[in-house]
Amino acid sequence: MLEIPAKPYGANDLISADDHIIEPSDVWIDRAPAKLKDRAPKIIVDEGIEKWKFDGQLKASHGLSVMAGRDYEEYTSQSQSFKDMRPGCYDPVERVKDMDLDGVLTQICFPSVPGTGGEVFLGLKDHDLRDWVFSTYNDWLLDEFEATAPGRLVGHAILPLYDPTKALSEFERIADKGVKSVSVPGRPQLVDGCLPLIHPEFDRLWSSVESCGVPINIHLGASRPGGPTSRMLQDPLPGQAEAYIAAAPLSCFEFLSEVIWGGMLERHPKLKVVSSEGGIGWIPYFLERNDYTFTKHRFWAKSQLDQKPSVYFHRQCYAAFIHDEAGIYSRELIGVDNLLWESDYPHTDTTWPMSHQWANESLKGVPEDEYRKITRGNAETVYNLG
Amino acid sequence: MLEIPAKPYGANDLISADDHIIEPSDVWIDRAPAKLKDRAPKIIVDEGIEKWKFDGQLKASHGLSVMAGRDYEEYTSQSQSFKDMRPGCYDPVERVKDMDLDGVLTQICFPSVPGTGGEVFLGLKDHDLRDWVFSTYNDWLLDEFEATAPGRLVGHAILPLYDPTKALSEFERIADKGVKSVSVPGRPQLVDGCLPLIHPEFDRLWSSVESCGVPINIHLGASRPGGPTSRMLQDPLPGQAEAYIAAAPLSCFEFLSEVIWGGMLERHPKLKVVSSEGGIGWIPYFLERNDYTFTKHRFWAKSQLDQKPSVYFHRQCYAAFIHDEAGIYSRELIGVDNLLWESDYPHTDTTWPMSHQWANESLKGVPEDEYRKITRGNAETVYNLG
Repeated sequence: MLEIPAKPYGANDLISADDHIIEPSDVWIDRAPAKLKDRAPKIIVDEGIEKWKFDGQLKASHGLSVMAGRDYEEYTSQSQSFKDMRPGCYDPVERVKDMDLDGVLTQICFPSVPGTGGEVFLGLKDHDLRDWVFSTYNDWLLDEFEATAPGRLVGHAILPLYDPTKALSEFERIADKGVKSVSVPGRPQLVDGCLPLIHPEFDRLWSSVESCGVPINIHLGASRPGGPTSRMLQDPLPGQAEAYIAAAPLSCFEFLSEVIWGGMLERHPKLKVVSSEGGIGWIPYFLERNDYTFTKHRFWAKSQLDQKPSVYFHRQCYAAFIHDEAGIYSRELIGVDNLLWESDYPHTDTTWPMSHQWANESLKGVPEDEYRKITRGNAETVYNLG
Repeated sequence: MLEIPAKPYGANDLISADDHIIEPSDVWIDRAPAKLKDRAPKIIVDEGIEKWKFDGQLKASHGLSVMAGRDYEEYTSQSQSFKDMRPGCYDPVERVKDMDLDGVLTQICFPSVPGTGGEVFLGLKDHDLRDWVFSTYNDWLLDEFEATAPGRLVGHAILPLYDPTKALSEFERIADKGVKSVSVPGRPQLVDGCLPLIHPEFDRLWSSVESCGVPINIHLGASRPGGPTSRMLQDPLPGQAEAYIAAAPLSCFEFLSEVIWGGMLERHPKLKVVSSEGGIGWIPYFLERNDYTFTKHRFWAKSQLDQKPSVYFHRQCYAAFIHDEAGIYSRELIGVDNLLWESDYPHTDTTWPMSHQWANESLKGVPEDEYRKITRGNAETVYNLG
């Protein structure tokens, strides 16, 4: 077991732009109306393993999602029961204690059961259930999770993107309740019947999100369900699982390209888009490659952009990273104002409980004012904190 | 039309590591035995457009593959007839003249009709035809294309990877004829019945390739047939085509990860692997991300690597680029000996007929000895030229 320090290495002044909620068992079942009581997502024990049951499926959690507090040698992909994980994974009161121990002021948290962008719920076959699970998650998030420690626990709401009108209504509802952030899958069109984020039918939604100053967040991997790499995790040859993990951040390159080229940021010039856990070392190449594509291909492709892609990135995109020497080395090419540090609690990549050490190591040689922006100030701006 | 200079900007001393053969119409039909005469790939005119006909399919070429000599404003994705492209696209004698005009000593060329790695031919339903088209291409390549200008025109042979034993036999046959290079698709397993490159059944093939000092080459895009992005080129929303082009190099990140983690380079420590047209600006991040994955995940994943992934990259991998400021900026992190300049004739990205200008611009500030390695010396080593 990892040695847990007795007190934090630094002051409680880091803001982490990417962490994860492991939903407790009562999120949906305790809020279900009578007609959905039997169908609401709930935990059952099957073959000795706790699993979420809904929509005719049984889903065991992935062990790698709850490894905070373990040594690397103890990591396992085998599903874990609630009793085998740190209570901070699923209990917001305990979460805050773990943050205090780590010197982290605020965590910005993704959902797990719904998919990091709600993509699992988008595909539900039971449409009554589908219409209900999004708003119920959001109510739990805002009324219970965030309310435990206002300003310290921030979560991404999820939207019923299978219907742009319903997604808009739900956003307006939670905007009234003070939602601070939203997460979406990079490619909802990979779910039957869903449209791409760049489709004009979503423009009213993005206008509303834009006018509230709320960022949309896309987590690595969330845009590639069914892709050639993710299939490899199911029955891999030796090495394919590691190759998948190493290449997973590329999904962020892909969706940022699509969001920019699709004109979403041109039509919504104040909309903020955050790439989460995608790293940053590839961004100088991303900017150059996209601008090069603009120079060479905009004529035959009849591109709709007025400016080169890097302009939209610098103006509206943010990227979260854990430890990224290549990216910090070339941070001037990316834009210091576009960078967000993250702790990824409680996943395998987490810096917990040594976040200050990791951040100091990662940002060695970075001037103090840039360090403050990257580890706190930029997140305060993006998420309207502070 | 692009202005073509009267004489080359620099001496005939560049070696380009990535160019493309547009196969002339006679490659297969003129070599077909009686029983395959009706089935050999041939050009027909259908709805006014020249198309390759084989295996029950009609395939029009992509306009963007033959844009050398045009201004960017004249680029088109519409299929072009032979008469509408520069003869250097398909005629090796004319190709050499175009190289002379460009100051390029040697081009290393990929096939087109078979797919850049032979992946189109791997999927042929007519198995008699499939058994014949690979060797026939290779014979044309070695006996006719390369023989036109030995040492100046180099082509990649293709292998019948649907059967590892046949692939080994074909490699041994062409090794005797002096083959200098081989290209493969990054993910043959995406073709029904084919195994991944890292499968142990290919080890005898890679041992033979390794012992001959011949590199294997994987071109961008060749590993992602059917991927979520390539589907977008068929019926894209505005912007999706450009987003696809911008993200296409990521396939090189993916297959290099798989080749390294799959142990192929550990089992074959002298095997050389070339990433073509994938660019280089992402490689510092690639190395860091893969090494980070090694540090964090090798225990639970029971990784088979003895050393961290960057060791194999630096020892055995090479990456070709056209213009890549981010990559040149951080070339020390990649390894100057691992970089190959390319001209991509006659595709849209080609530097022709201003390759010297492009190379000078791309390598501005790079010391003379490094410039020589990147634009010539490294390719001489990898392809056993000189």
